[in-house]
Amino acid sequence: MRGAVIHSPGDVRFENLDDPKVIEPTDAVIRTVATCVCGSDLWPYRGLEPVGDPHPMGHEYVGIVEEVGSEVTGVRPGQFVVGSFATSDNTCANCLNGWQSSCLNREFMSTCQADYVRIPNAHGTLVATDEHPDAEMVPSLLAVSDVMGTGWYAALAAEVKPGSTAVVVGDGAVGLCGVIAAKELGAERIIAMSRHASRQQLALEFGATDIVAERGEEGVARVKDLTGGIGADSVLECVGTAGSMRQALHSTRPGGNVGFVGVPHEVAIDGQELFFSHVGLRGGPAPVRRFLPYLIDRVLTGRINPGKVFDLSLPLDQVAEGYKAMDERRAVKALLKP
Amino acid sequence: MRGAVIHSPGDVRFENLDDPKVIEPTDAVIRTVATCVCGSDLWPYRGLEPVGDPHPMGHEYVGIVEEVGSEVTGVRPGQFVVGSFATSDNTCANCLNGWQSSCLNREFMSTCQADYVRIPNAHGTLVATDEHPDAEMVPSLLAVSDVMGTGWYAALAAEVKPGSTAVVVGDGAVGLCGVIAAKELGAERIIAMSRHASRQQLALEFGATDIVAERGEEGVARVKDLTGGIGADSVLECVGTAGSMRQALHSTRPGGNVGFVGVPHEVAIDGQELFFSHVGLRGGPAPVRRFLPYLIDRVLTGRINPGKVFDLSLPLDQVAEGYKAMDERRAVKALLKP
Repeated sequence: MRGAVIHSPGDVRFENLDDPKVIEPTDAVIRTVATCVCGSDLWPYRGLEPVGDPHPMGHEYVGIVEEVGSEVTGVRPGQFVVGSFATSDNTCANCLNGWQSSCLNREFMSTCQADYVRIPNAHGTLVATDEHPDAEMVPSLLAVSDVMGTGWYAALAAEVKPGSTAVVVGDGAVGLCGVIAAKELGAERIIAMSRHASRQQLALEFGATDIVAERGEEGVARVKDLTGGIGADSVLECVGTAGSMRQALHSTRPGGNVGFVGVPHEVAIDGQELFFSHVGLRGGPAPVRRFLPYLIDRVLTGRINPGKVFDLSLPLDQVAEGYKAMDERRAVKALLKP
Repeated sequence: MRGAVIHSPGDVRFENLDDPKVIEPTDAVIRTVATCVCGSDLWPYRGLEPVGDPHPMGHEYVGIVEEVGSEVTGVRPGQFVVGSFATSDNTCANCLNGWQSSCLNREFMSTCQADYVRIPNAHGTLVATDEHPDAEMVPSLLAVSDVMGTGWYAALAAEVKPGSTAVVVGDGAVGLCGVIAAKELGAERIIAMSRHASRQQLALEFGATDIVAERGEEGVARVKDLTGGIGADSVLECVGTAGSMRQALHSTRPGGNVGFVGVPHEVAIDGQELFFSHVGLRGGPAPVRRFLPYLIDRVLTGRINPGKVFDLSLPLDQVAEGYKAMDERRAVKALLKP
């Protein structure tokens, strides 16, 4: 089979690779129906994280089950499945608490930009749809496996409640899905922070009520203007830099909450500042598995359409162009089809 | 009148001071019935915070109203009142959200180790009891004004729920009150971290089910042993050092919560570590005013007895000995009577 391999910053190639096999009895192998490039893939691509030796890339996927190990009983060959970037056995103490992305047997997916993928912990990770979905549903189901699940978690971690005011910091795919989540969870006012016309437009379409184009302390001041001077009830931090975290914390009212889902890069939070802010803070890799059943249902019933975040669709063998377009911000998110 | 004045680290004196007066129409002046020395008073006493010019000390108080300004209608001269270390108008947006210690007109009390005290925002800060309480109730009512209110907030911020497991880091008065709070909020298992026999004893009396004497990573390992290997649902951080915060974060299970009420001194939280921990974090000066009505009721009905944290009682003019005893850890907390 073939798949994407990163060799160094800016250098992603589509290469021949060994076919994946069932190794553990809890494994499955799927034939990829769609995969994509994640904002977090850009960290090594931009040289902001070490690349190390050349290695496969990709952690988002939907596909058709090809083969399962002897202990995988929940899904069977031929089914269309959605998974998560973090695999989980769904039986350990953390999974039972609803924190499958802290599963004691967790493995992070990392080989999904390929024709076929081995899924560890398939028994606890994959959720099958009743039927093969229509082609137009595939992008939204793919989004559920990562960006929509992550936006959903950001809104839950920020404790978005009916009637509340939510701010979304970051207008990438996760931030835009965060707008969908805030809307679904009943936020009355949703302030999207974005400087890009096309992303502003999509945020409004997804349910944002206000756009703030300013950044940093100027952006914070605008949010305060819109929230009676005290800040928002809930802020979704969907970037992961020191600046975006500061912007998020300063935009939250005393007693409000920040949900942070951008993997923090060189972010240190001052204990005393957090203390006096009265802001609650929770982040992490989203426990997408917890949300899969109801997010899949919301997609298949047409209630949400997060697949709109894919504004570029490419054949999988053009994966390098997908990275390039996202790096140059010509695309929000690139979908790849084998 | 007379009151405590700190001149330099280790040097607290009882001196003649001007009588406080009603200045603003929202002020009251009370005659102190009891006051005390707080763990946080030890930071400047120990030279760990700058003292600056000599200044009065103390922020915990119960007393009898002497005089009120023209806009103070909720309490009247002659009533016994309990307040909070942070004053609040109880009408601003933050107060209405229940975050009175972030009141837009907040003033922190700082002159309470004295015969008489001026209370700013008295209209929104003071809560009167129906009758003058019996003398034996006074220590517990005094505790409510700060340490019990703070322990209560720590337990709420750590989201202690019925049936949950809670850990209390810190065996000072706030930590011990945190044990009371965790018990009242229904925690089934309460692990108190303490190395001091007398404090361990009081923690057990207040409802702790387990004592962990180890500290640091050794203490964390003990907590993990007691919590199925994953950590506790809720951890109350009642110290405020980098070490205690680390111990608290590491003792919490993925998806659990840390409530931190020790004012952080040189504490920086690594964003990426917090991210992957899945731990929720909220701290701050406790919004004691929110809790006063029901905590006063719990004391007066004999349901809780947080006054037991006072293991030393002195005449107010011996305030210097109160500081000394606490500094040398001969006393958990010193009550002072004018």
